[in-house]
Amino acid sequence: MSKPVITAFDWVPWFAKGLVRDLRVRWALEEVGQAYDVRYLPQGSQKAPSHRALQPFGQVPTYEQDGLTLFESGAIVQHIAETYGGLLPRDAGGRARAIEWMFAALNTVEPPITDYAIATLFEGEEPWSRPRLPAVIARISERLDELSRRLGENEWLDGSFSAGDLLMIAVLRQLKGTSLEGAHDNLAAYVARGEARPAFQRALASQMAGFTAPPPPEYAFLDQPPTRQGESR
Amino acid sequence: MSKPVITAFDWVPWFAKGLVRDLRVRWALEEVGQAYDVRYLPQGSQKAPSHRALQPFGQVPTYEQDGLTLFESGAIVQHIAETYGGLLPRDAGGRARAIEWMFAALNTVEPPITDYAIATLFEGEEPWSRPRLPAVIARISERLDELSRRLGENEWLDGSFSAGDLLMIAVLRQLKGTSLEGAHDNLAAYVARGEARPAFQRALASQMAGFTAPPPPEYAFLDQPPTRQGESR
Repeated sequence: MSKPVITAFDWVPWFAKGLVRDLRVRWALEEVGQAYDVRYLPQGSQKAPSHRALQPFGQVPTYEQDGLTLFESGAIVQHIAETYGGLLPRDAGGRARAIEWMFAALNTVEPPITDYAIATLFEGEEPWSRPRLPAVIARISERLDELSRRLGENEWLDGSFSAGDLLMIAVLRQLKGTSLEGAHDNLAAYVARGEARPAFQRALASQMAGFTAPPPPEYAFLDQPPTRQGESR
Repeated sequence: MSKPVITAFDWVPWFAKGLVRDLRVRWALEEVGQAYDVRYLPQGSQKAPSHRALQPFGQVPTYEQDGLTLFESGAIVQHIAETYGGLLPRDAGGRARAIEWMFAALNTVEPPITDYAIATLFEGEEPWSRPRLPAVIARISERLDELSRRLGENEWLDGSFSAGDLLMIAVLRQLKGTSLEGAHDNLAAYVARGEARPAFQRALASQMAGFTAPPPPEYAFLDQPPTRQGESR
């Protein structure tokens, strides 16, 4: 098989740096030891027809290898896990449970976290965002309580580190810098264990090194976090 | 293998009838021709420790068979597809693309639709919900436009009917009765094709037949849709 090619952005707002979803795919490739190339999309071109032919929703990442084109980072991570081995248990039951945690990360835990980003970042200035924030936080807290209870003192969610842990940790990292980040000691330690993996470190460094473009003029104010006193995410 | 057992609710609010996520698992089981049993959870017991031992987030459905316990409907659908065949293409590329549509349904298309349900049902009476509804609808519309463009005149998303179509149609059905339901003729026809499948019909009938309990007294007002003139979802 030839080296896969993924797509990524050459610039994103400060709050997305280190979190864009190609990180999940880079991390999976690093875990299985597969080298890859990156094609960087200049700002704005993700909605162009040429990229939509690969990714109908105009997002990153995509994955191309030997005539196969895939989008949707969860599916790409699963494809990598199935192609190279090492991220899914070999026994049928363990494999099904690792996939269960992949879907739990993306369909149960991530949606309320995305809602928080909408309320604080994308619609942070809208008059309706602040009043509804307590309800948004309550939905996330319920999920974190449940996840914390299930994880307990275990190192990973189900036996060895798997693609389920990879996606769950990637999802939980989106809470960094928010009041929810350190709410559960065992979840904080779980995220830290994931981030300490050499494969994660290489993936993060690669993503960060890829932000080489200046911000588009109209988004220059999003290049760095706000620093005014009292202002926070 | 013995007959699988899934869990489902014996009562839900009117707006959830025909949409609860055990429908997705019932549909998959009907498609592959596998009989199953249902254990109904009395109202409230989904948050009890006995059910949380099976489903850490206190939801339905779960799936039990020969010592394997799974939760998360997307993962259960995939497990059924892999165990019985017929819902995933046999070639590696087609299989990866069907899984891609499963994740696209649950991680790209469903979250904004869930946000709509929050704004109109769960937080429908909150003062912040009506002002933010246009932005919520705009996010869904963008996804529907993109999905409609990709589907075009095709019968299914990628070749034959797959687990990806099953989940995408189940997700799109949540827009029924909203202003977004008929926004794209090809998506409406796509959903109708899915619903016309005998396996879907059997799954829907089974779910509806399972709602045999009276509403809990405190939720009696949610047993039937509101009928006052001018009131709508």
